[in-house]
Amino acid sequence: MQYTRLGSSDQAVAEAIVAQETQALVRWGAGDPSGFLDICHPDVTYFDPFLEERLDGLSALTSTYERLRGKIHIDSFELVNPRVVVGGEMAVLSFNFVSKDGNDTLRWNCTEVYRSAAPRWLIVQTHWSFVQPAGATA
Amino acid sequence: MQYTRLGSSDQAVAEAIVAQETQALVRWGAGDPSGFLDICHPDVTYFDPFLEERLDGLSALTSTYERLRGKIHIDSFELVNPRVVVGGEMAVLSFNFVSKDGNDTLRWNCTEVYRSAAPRWLIVQTHWSFVQPAGATA
Repeated sequence: MQYTRLGSSDQAVAEAIVAQETQALVRWGAGDPSGFLDICHPDVTYFDPFLEERLDGLSALTSTYERLRGKIHIDSFELVNPRVVVGGEMAVLSFNFVSKDGNDTLRWNCTEVYRSAAPRWLIVQTHWSFVQPAGATA
Repeated sequence: MQYTRLGSSDQAVAEAIVAQETQALVRWGAGDPSGFLDICHPDVTYFDPFLEERLDGLSALTSTYERLRGKIHIDSFELVNPRVVVGGEMAVLSFNFVSKDGNDTLRWNCTEVYRSAAPRWLIVQTHWSFVQPAGATA
């Protein structure tokens, strides 16, 4: 992991955020979207490549994720070069993500913006996209 | 524009960030990447759909953007529903983006994470992706 600021409290925040994100991904890969829903702020905004526009609010995200409950399966995944920048009340985690299921491998870009809600941190903005989707090779 | 917090200082920050982003986009659409490079933090990290992985640091982003100098042209664009969440030293701007050039229309998702560097704000994380790229319709 890389840290822009190495103060010990920031490092602790960064490690907590990566651990929290990883736990949510483990549940996601087992078909359970609640790991993410439980750590989203009520005012979360959300992008992924399957949506026509940004989703606004936990209620909208919950509706979308509940349609996927039990339908997602990931054999293994890796957060590649997770990086956290901590700035007071907010922090941003970014990483490349590789997920494997059977013979399928998906490669993603991910940005997660967290906000302090002591004692934990809640996601206020999520952005998932595919690495070089069809038609986007430079 | 939507604001999660409506404190007057936060609203001023939100308006300043949207104005700064818009100015950078105007320059971008005229082939000039310096509008963005001038408002990026030295430790900026960056995703777009043309890259194989996250870019780390202003030097890497500058190299990538300089190859595009003079090659981008946008007739008109719209930031759709820009939303800013301000949390102390950091703020996140997210929006859908529609750009038109001739008969071509591109639709994007964008997340920009800014960090205070008084008197202005600098981008620490950028994430551009296509709305529903080929193969991603649910």
